[in-house]
Amino acid sequence: MDAVTLLGLVAAALTTTAFLPQLLKTWRSKSAKDVSLWMLITFSTGVFLWLIYGLYIQSLPVIIANSVTFVLSSINLILKIRYES
Amino acid sequence: MDAVTLLGLVAAALTTTAFLPQLLKTWRSKSAKDVSLWMLITFSTGVFLWLIYGLYIQSLPVIIANSVTFVLSSINLILKIRYES
Repeated sequence: MDAVTLLGLVAAALTTTAFLPQLLKTWRSKSAKDVSLWMLITFSTGVFLWLIYGLYIQSLPVIIANSVTFVLSSINLILKIRYES
Repeated sequence: MDAVTLLGLVAAALTTTAFLPQLLKTWRSKSAKDVSLWMLITFSTGVFLWLIYGLYIQSLPVIIANSVTFVLSSINLILKIRYES
């Protein structure tokens, strides 16, 4: 594997898992007041569209990365709604 | 422009601008207690690596999208550190 591909994989791993620490923080604190609902809606929608795009262009990395990110950002969205209502 | 390219552009626009609502919310409330520092660090690092990756593969969409996202997520990170210290 060449360095550039490795760079892309590390970048994908970081942006894909970035919402996990937010999920754990919200879950523990049972509070998401400062987290923007519109950020979560916009990001989840965008990642969902990336997933559809990946299916169209049949790119496994795009499909896998955005599936994981979509699950994490959606859970964040559900927790935000649950703890704010 | 075909539908699939349009889908990719809309997805990119949404995930690129997603951190703007968070930035505005934190700026107005002067509070980011519930926002995960590790989410912002992980995401900003990942997006920075995507930017470097885009420069290597000379992909303008990857460069532009990740430059904007990097600026927005970095400002969120600075505001988080500023309001929490």
